[in-house]
Amino acid sequence: MTLDRNTIKQKLRQQRLGTPSWGYADSGTRFHTLTRPYAPRNLHEKIEDAAQVQKFTGVCPCLDLHTAWDSSTDWAATRDFAESLGLKIGAINPHLFAHNDYSFGTICNPAERVRRQSLDKLLEGIEIGQAVGSKVLSLWFPDGTDYPGQDNFRKRKGYAEAALRRVYDAMPADMRLVLEYKFFEPAFYHTDLADWGISYILTRQLGDRAGVLVDLGHHALGANVEHIVSILISEHKLGGFHFNDKKYGDDDLTVGSINPYQLFLIYCELVAAAVDERYAGDMERVAYMIDENHNLKPQIEGTIQSVCALQEAYAKALLVDHAALAKAQDNADLIQTEELIKAAYNTDVRPLLAEVRGEMGLAADPVAAFRASGYMKAITAKRT
Amino acid sequence: MTLDRNTIKQKLRQQRLGTPSWGYADSGTRFHTLTRPYAPRNLHEKIEDAAQVQKFTGVCPCLDLHTAWDSSTDWAATRDFAESLGLKIGAINPHLFAHNDYSFGTICNPAERVRRQSLDKLLEGIEIGQAVGSKVLSLWFPDGTDYPGQDNFRKRKGYAEAALRRVYDAMPADMRLVLEYKFFEPAFYHTDLADWGISYILTRQLGDRAGVLVDLGHHALGANVEHIVSILISEHKLGGFHFNDKKYGDDDLTVGSINPYQLFLIYCELVAAAVDERYAGDMERVAYMIDENHNLKPQIEGTIQSVCALQEAYAKALLVDHAALAKAQDNADLIQTEELIKAAYNTDVRPLLAEVRGEMGLAADPVAAFRASGYMKAITAKRT
Amino acid sequence: MTLDRNTIKQKLRQQRLGTPSWGYADSGTRFHTLTRPYAPRNLHEKIEDAAQVQKFTGVCPCLDLHTAWDSSTDWAATRDFAESLGLKIGAINPHLFAHNDYSFGTICNPAERVRRQSLDKLLEGIEIGQAVGSKVLSLWFPDGTDYPGQDNFRKRKGYAEAALRRVYDAMPADMRLVLEYKFFEPAFYHTDLADWGISYILTRQLGDRAGVLVDLGHHALGANVEHIVSILISEHKLGGFHFNDKKYGDDDLTVGSINPYQLFLIYCELVAAAVDERYAGDMERVAYMIDENHNLKPQIEGTIQSVCALQEAYAKALLVDHAALAKAQDNADLIQTEELIKAAYNTDVRPLLAEVRGEMGLAADPVAAFRASGYMKAITAKRT
Amino acid sequence: MTLDRNTIKQKLRQQRLGTPSWGYADSGTRFHTLTRPYAPRNLHEKIEDAAQVQKFTGVCPCLDLHTAWDSSTDWAATRDFAESLGLKIGAINPHLFAHNDYSFGTICNPAERVRRQSLDKLLEGIEIGQAVGSKVLSLWFPDGTDYPGQDNFRKRKGYAEAALRRVYDAMPADMRLVLEYKFFEPAFYHTDLADWGISYILTRQLGDRAGVLVDLGHHALGANVEHIVSILISEHKLGGFHFNDKKYGDDDLTVGSINPYQLFLIYCELVAAAVDERYAGDMERVAYMIDENHNLKPQIEGTIQSVCALQEAYAKALLVDHAALAKAQDNADLIQTEELIKAAYNTDVRPLLAEVRGEMGLAADPVAAFRASGYMKAITAKRT
Repeated sequence: MTLDRNTIKQKLRQQRLGTPSWGYADSGTRFHTLTRPYAPRNLHEKIEDAAQVQKFTGVCPCLDLHTAWDSSTDWAATRDFAESLGLKIGAINPHLFAHNDYSFGTICNPAERVRRQSLDKLLEGIEIGQAVGSKVLSLWFPDGTDYPGQDNFRKRKGYAEAALRRVYDAMPADMRLVLEYKFFEPAFYHTDLADWGISYILTRQLGDRAGVLVDLGHHALGANVEHIVSILISEHKLGGFHFNDKKYGDDDLTVGSINPYQLFLIYCELVAAAVDERYAGDMERVAYMIDENHNLKPQIEGTIQSVCALQEAYAKALLVDHAALAKAQDNADLIQTEELIKAAYNTDVRPLLAEVRGEMGLAADPVAAFRASGYMKAITAKRT
Repeated sequence: MTLDRNTIKQKLRQQRLGTPSWGYADSGTRFHTLTRPYAPRNLHEKIEDAAQVQKFTGVCPCLDLHTAWDSSTDWAATRDFAESLGLKIGAINPHLFAHNDYSFGTICNPAERVRRQSLDKLLEGIEIGQAVGSKVLSLWFPDGTDYPGQDNFRKRKGYAEAALRRVYDAMPADMRLVLEYKFFEPAFYHTDLADWGISYILTRQLGDRAGVLVDLGHHALGANVEHIVSILISEHKLGGFHFNDKKYGDDDLTVGSINPYQLFLIYCELVAAAVDERYAGDMERVAYMIDENHNLKPQIEGTIQSVCALQEAYAKALLVDHAALAKAQDNADLIQTEELIKAAYNTDVRPLLAEVRGEMGLAADPVAAFRASGYMKAITAKRT
Repeated sequence: MTLDRNTIKQKLRQQRLGTPSWGYADSGTRFHTLTRPYAPRNLHEKIEDAAQVQKFTGVCPCLDLHTAWDSSTDWAATRDFAESLGLKIGAINPHLFAHNDYSFGTICNPAERVRRQSLDKLLEGIEIGQAVGSKVLSLWFPDGTDYPGQDNFRKRKGYAEAALRRVYDAMPADMRLVLEYKFFEPAFYHTDLADWGISYILTRQLGDRAGVLVDLGHHALGANVEHIVSILISEHKLGGFHFNDKKYGDDDLTVGSINPYQLFLIYCELVAAAVDERYAGDMERVAYMIDENHNLKPQIEGTIQSVCALQEAYAKALLVDHAALAKAQDNADLIQTEELIKAAYNTDVRPLLAEVRGEMGLAADPVAAFRASGYMKAITAKRT
Repeated sequence: MTLDRNTIKQKLRQQRLGTPSWGYADSGTRFHTLTRPYAPRNLHEKIEDAAQVQKFTGVCPCLDLHTAWDSSTDWAATRDFAESLGLKIGAINPHLFAHNDYSFGTICNPAERVRRQSLDKLLEGIEIGQAVGSKVLSLWFPDGTDYPGQDNFRKRKGYAEAALRRVYDAMPADMRLVLEYKFFEPAFYHTDLADWGISYILTRQLGDRAGVLVDLGHHALGANVEHIVSILISEHKLGGFHFNDKKYGDDDLTVGSINPYQLFLIYCELVAAAVDERYAGDMERVAYMIDENHNLKPQIEGTIQSVCALQEAYAKALLVDHAALAKAQDNADLIQTEELIKAAYNTDVRPLLAEVRGEMGLAADPVAAFRASGYMKAITAKRT
């Protein structure tokens, strides 16, 4: 017995995804950044681009900011401008980037001066968040070492704990902190927050308003990400997602472009938890965010493709017959569990999504509709 | 300033390593088990073989048992026999193997009957431990699934928590529990205790007498094991080690045979923690155990090679100038930190170990001495 | 412009897949083999089981044999029995397994005696192939080493070359040889035929009737298997497939159960080559074989699920609009290439396959139909 | 029986390593490039820095150039300047970088204009090579795709073949071409030259003056690089090395800093081939080059550390008792093969290298001697 069609459609209409300001800008690899004539030249233009994604998808009302690349002399005005285009500011990602000072770390840096400067940037992020109405402080640290013996693991962990305590205590009561981890890069021998286990330890120490952020690209090859998601749910510590896809490293590719089945399986965990009374409240607070580098694709179009992939994964997960699945699981009937999971996954949900979009007053195919809108031509002319 | 030579030699004399009863028996891959004419036919003969390793190395007084493969009608007599050969029983590894019942899991099995049976085997392990004087219950579970959707991750986690609580509460006050994790195999899609984070969560719930067991072969490719060790130390949750080496999967090769530098770096963490007053007490309770499958090498000889590799790694780690290293680390002088680490690693510690062995009344080269002893010839004749 | 529906249906009716005799038998991990009461007790019963897969799918008329586990005193009678059930014998996999002699290798063994014995088994495989009407000799070698320095890589490569030359020259003119490679296991430090490059070198030396066999589970994590397939096609050296799926090692799971998108992408390469006049002739000779260990699933049902997954991947690949794709590729329109690829992949091809099956006189859902047939109950009663 | 000490010392004196011009410049990750006040501002200053490495090590007389970052209006004058400092120009790496044009590939780009432009750059590299007296054209292509379906694998392979044929035919008779491969990055879904097998196919087509370049960081996790080296030797196709080290991706870390044992095992293959008359001639033509990004270390010092690591690996490999090893290998005496390999590896070769350096008129510790020289202080003052 699966959910009825109206319930599914309602849930699909209510799906909410944040898109990242940096996902609209030029990006690249360590070898080269592809520059585009239509790249946004400032935060206002990023907001305009994000508004297009919302216009054609209807499920992306939040723009996530990164204070390393987004700046404003009047954050309240920034917020007003976003709202005038139908957007809210989602998560704030504080600036700890792109400066020689951070070469050996930020909050874990051996130099006290840099640790203090890093903390200041984090506290500044809280203030910006308050100014723009953000309720989520999203933290990732490029901290780590390149060589065995370069620094002391335990000492650095202590530095991280001290800084995070200060940040957590400085947050207003309605702000939450989500803490990312990453297996490797930009540090190549060790990263201080290397896996979910470390982020779990740190956020548990902090308190209930801290959770773990799962970036799909930040795991070792072979890791079972849906299992990690389920553990974090069971511990009430799933804070949010950075959605993207990868084949090898942290490739930041379009969501679902490499392994769409994994994305579906992650959504199966989310759907199951949302109807479990022990976790339903937690699930409402999870921050769903896209985090990609569109090195080669036009950014708005790549973002819309990602949104569609997330809608499809969610729709398919909603189609799973969870009652029948639970029964087959208890019987260890592996043929039947596979049939049930695959029955949902193999369903073509594009007609269902077209229907949902129609009910929301949107075109059935957001990518095609945006491409036909003339927006790219207009901004190319304007921004060159 | 490194430790003085006498202190180093004293520590090397006090190093203690457990060897596994199953490491003396025939083993193999899923394709074939190489059978040997000198393979021990019962637990008594495994004890005799383990006594040889102790005889030639002097640092292996403990034999770890596995109740799936070791059985006794009189465990007290088994203990007496071991003691008559200078051995104690180290850790007890309860039987949860090699039976159709466990195909879909042991304590996480969907069938209540199997979960109860698994728990009984764990409780039996505690009893055996008490009978033979063991203070360490070493737990690894082959639990997991092969297919997406096969079973419910969170349900299974709940089963594991319930069983472990029962086991922990049944242990006598002087027994500790060490909990292993494993990235994959024998389940291929997910393993219930897949990484250190899960074992950390479970052992933290249990209490102070539960810690995490790090098997060097049980990590994703690219994982920084020495970093994991440092985190567990910092959380007072490092329970013990299963030493072996690997190139790809859980290959169970001779310790240090593939990546001796990693082994050294792990020992650097152990040496540093042992002189840190916050962790020195914890470090005395860590269970150091070898866990190998000698598929192709004669088992006793392969075990002695592993012991030597562990002695060399420890000796080199003791040579690190930790004071100079800490200073270079604080200065982010990466050239100097590498010089200091490599200076210790590049030292040939065989003369030092020969001296230590001489002082212990042992031959300088344990492998050569054992090979010259005639023991293999004698047991081949006797056991054929 | 995609293919018209009738052409697609014709191609789907003509798809041919071999199933492996060992896939019907009990299998397991190095820890345990799950034994089943309905497991075939001999080759005749394996043939009966394979006939069921053909009965319900219609695309599996070939049974591949493995002379390590299949034996017959009268191979002609075996062939007759198979044919009486509508089956032909597909590939012959010679016996080089499960014996102490092969611990250090087969054709690469340092001992001349074992190399000669291995060669004899290969030549025996040719004879069996002739007796049963097989045209494909399928070779995989468990050769390799566990430890650095254990043996000389180049010496062993010379041994392999010499043996394969003897085998190739002994084959009748209408027999082909397909040569498998494997990244690791059962040897853990190096495998003599570790990757497609080595198998390519060896089969190129041999001649036109030798090609490379791609087992989907035999690659490093992160490898792009569809790219490897395309290279082998371009070099006229794609010999065949062993289909299965994996998450980490050579997990031998149900085809498409872990990464169905990769399977689709491989089929896209096959479909494109089949309509390219430079490669169409080669493609007709590719051997498509399933190779799985059904450790936990009932074997016949797991095999039927695999067949369905292969049908679905092929059907979806046939739906790709290759002309539009080529144009978008030449324009580097990455949005459009993704839309085109995903449009085919997201299509639910189950109705199309149901139609094809109906035209072949088969039930629309082979798994359900087989489950309803009573065959499992019958053989369980008979074989216990 | 190992080589006598004088022979070993002679070989160590004759070791030759190229250092890369780009290894002296600032480098970084996709997130940030650490800028240093002493960074060379032009090719002349890179030559000065490289001369320091040669001054303190005596085994690095060759500087490898990269025409993307090194430019000269008078290449003959550049050569003269290098020679005035005791350096020759080693390999030429043609410019195919850091431009929007190459976003979708260079010689494999779907656009004919970019393919032609790329070919022109390659031909220009040959001319520069002739002008500066280089005999090695070193080719790596950042070609690949980020998304399934983005481009046609076989079409791109044809483009690569056509371009390389043109390049090979344009080389003077005394120039050789070495062709690199790379598993991933900067393309994330597929790289056109992904592994040694593809580079092997392409260089075999070209002719005897083309060989494969092995960059230690360009392999999948778990790959056995020493085995790959042995295969290329056996096929007379080992063209050269790019030495560095890695933990996960292409991390470009100091040689031997992560896995020094692997480096030793590679050198064991090289030492064995050099005394094998079938390969000795080939081995004299192998190009040994360092290729690192010193993101965090001072470049000259990091390069000297790498040179020392390569000297140590070579020295240890020269100490292996190859005759005894071959005998133990033929007997499958795995205990003894490990003892022999480890006996060489565990030897502290620093005294031997100090002796060699003394005989060459060099300081025993090149890192310490360079640090004491005052060069860094001088260039920091001069270049700021």
